[in-house]
Amino acid sequence: MKIHDLWKHYPTLSKDLQKTLNLMEKSISISNQDVEDAIIEMISSGGKLLRPAYLILFSRFGKPDKKKITALAAAMESLHTATLVHDDIVDEAELRRSTPTLQHRFGKDVAVYAGDYLFVSSFKLLANYASSLKSIQYNAKSMDAILSGELGQMSKRYKTDVTVDDYLENISGKTAELFALSAFVGAYESDCSLLFSNKCKKIGHSIGMAFQIMDDILDYSQTSTTIGKPVLEDVKQGVYSLPLLYALQSNRSALLPLLNKRENMTDADAEKVYQIVQQEGAVDKAKKVAKDYTNNALAAIKTLEKVEPKTAKTLYDLTEYLLQRTQ
Amino acid sequence: MKIHDLWKHYPTLSKDLQKTLNLMEKSISISNQDVEDAIIEMISSGGKLLRPAYLILFSRFGKPDKKKITALAAAMESLHTATLVHDDIVDEAELRRSTPTLQHRFGKDVAVYAGDYLFVSSFKLLANYASSLKSIQYNAKSMDAILSGELGQMSKRYKTDVTVDDYLENISGKTAELFALSAFVGAYESDCSLLFSNKCKKIGHSIGMAFQIMDDILDYSQTSTTIGKPVLEDVKQGVYSLPLLYALQSNRSALLPLLNKRENMTDADAEKVYQIVQQEGAVDKAKKVAKDYTNNALAAIKTLEKVEPKTAKTLYDLTEYLLQRTQ
Repeated sequence: MKIHDLWKHYPTLSKDLQKTLNLMEKSISISNQDVEDAIIEMISSGGKLLRPAYLILFSRFGKPDKKKITALAAAMESLHTATLVHDDIVDEAELRRSTPTLQHRFGKDVAVYAGDYLFVSSFKLLANYASSLKSIQYNAKSMDAILSGELGQMSKRYKTDVTVDDYLENISGKTAELFALSAFVGAYESDCSLLFSNKCKKIGHSIGMAFQIMDDILDYSQTSTTIGKPVLEDVKQGVYSLPLLYALQSNRSALLPLLNKRENMTDADAEKVYQIVQQEGAVDKAKKVAKDYTNNALAAIKTLEKVEPKTAKTLYDLTEYLLQRTQ
Repeated sequence: MKIHDLWKHYPTLSKDLQKTLNLMEKSISISNQDVEDAIIEMISSGGKLLRPAYLILFSRFGKPDKKKITALAAAMESLHTATLVHDDIVDEAELRRSTPTLQHRFGKDVAVYAGDYLFVSSFKLLANYASSLKSIQYNAKSMDAILSGELGQMSKRYKTDVTVDDYLENISGKTAELFALSAFVGAYESDCSLLFSNKCKKIGHSIGMAFQIMDDILDYSQTSTTIGKPVLEDVKQGVYSLPLLYALQSNRSALLPLLNKRENMTDADAEKVYQIVQQEGAVDKAKKVAKDYTNNALAAIKTLEKVEPKTAKTLYDLTEYLLQRTQ
């Protein structure tokens, strides 16, 4: 398995991430060939490994034990992958990373257990490599927050009264929490103080928030071929993200009749929604929010230069690069 | 919520189990009302709470911290319930404990997340109350074994060459492991030695094996109204348990044409399978295996009398009662 091209500019990190991916693969050993194949394919389908990358980078502010850090990084990515597999069941998604989803190819039964196995694999890596019960406790708390975010999003499906605050709360759980946890665990398990590790956690959280908002903005900026999934699929599924919420604030009357079609929204309707969001300048408003989170993260990273200048610089460059994809 | 009638003869245990159930309910707090309702309903639908009961009983061989033991007992039952919810998705099951399954009532999307939430709830209780990383590690290992059992069973669906050993290996994972873990965690987290706790684990494992075999035998001994699920539903789903495997050994030619109909097996076919299993004396053969596991467990429990006579007696009586349901 080969890691994402993104990392070719970061040679040492790239080496660590390759080890992480190899360990993830090695940790999958199941008597059921279908499920094993499905999981290996999912792992190797080119995820960006951002959570492991942040865990590894933040560990460098302390005294990282390489073997442990690789295992914990693999645990984060396994957990992330588990949530993707189960999300795709719930969303009835057909494509993920430009390839057919696991549930679409192998059926829901395989996908349920494949996700469960990835959860367990994550749990095993964590239990066997974390040095303290505290890390396990933080992890459990984060898993709770992640699931609450997913469930919050699900309960707001097709609700046109969902607020910007609802949205921010849901993405805080479903996305930012795992970035926050990765940053925290990397630092804390490398003997950084609780105070310092919590600072890292906060940076991770801001990065996660900005990342998710940028990801949601992509739906309104690119075509299906460049992002690997059908355009406005989320809207058809009743998941309304920040650009759409801002457009709803400024031109509710134009959008409501389209959104109220719910599952029956056609491609032409989706196209209209897309146009209205553009006209209302809602993408720029959303970008502004992402930029605020990005700037918060970058400013906080700057303050880490005195601790470990080289790591702080890598962290800064990577974060800037990732979060300014379309800015 | 009220606990199962089974416990009215065990007043102190009954009190502890009621607390366990209350804590399980209290641990469920989700922003999504559908999922919360679904989980609470599943928890309160009258499971026997056997795993918590064994955890609590085995804790009495040491110095149990009541609050911790209640939490760990709740963790075991939450984990068990999580596996039931996801199994019902995979099995497309319509009934569980005589009531419609969660996935049948609320849909697969709710059921996927409800199961995930129960996993997380179990993980949280464990992380917050276990005193040692070792317990967490054992738990992770058991979760791996449980899932491997489920997956092993799934990979053997509709396979008429599945052996008795395959069957025993799969139920060892999917059922016996959690009984073993409950016994182990109860003792180990109450300051029993690792040696003693491993002895408890072995007893729990034998109880779990006997319990699952007896449960599978019930399919061939009772009607749908008494066990709360349709007769031979497992066989129609391609899951072949011990009585059928013994019947396949002695009268393969009569069974193969019926089993090879797979999903298309009719109620009349299932009735024929039922009759053949009866004629071949396969139920008695399976009962003999269950009895061996039961006797192993009871003999080992006897040796615990010198440690804690009263607890050993309760354990003996309960186990004898549970495992001789149809013997």
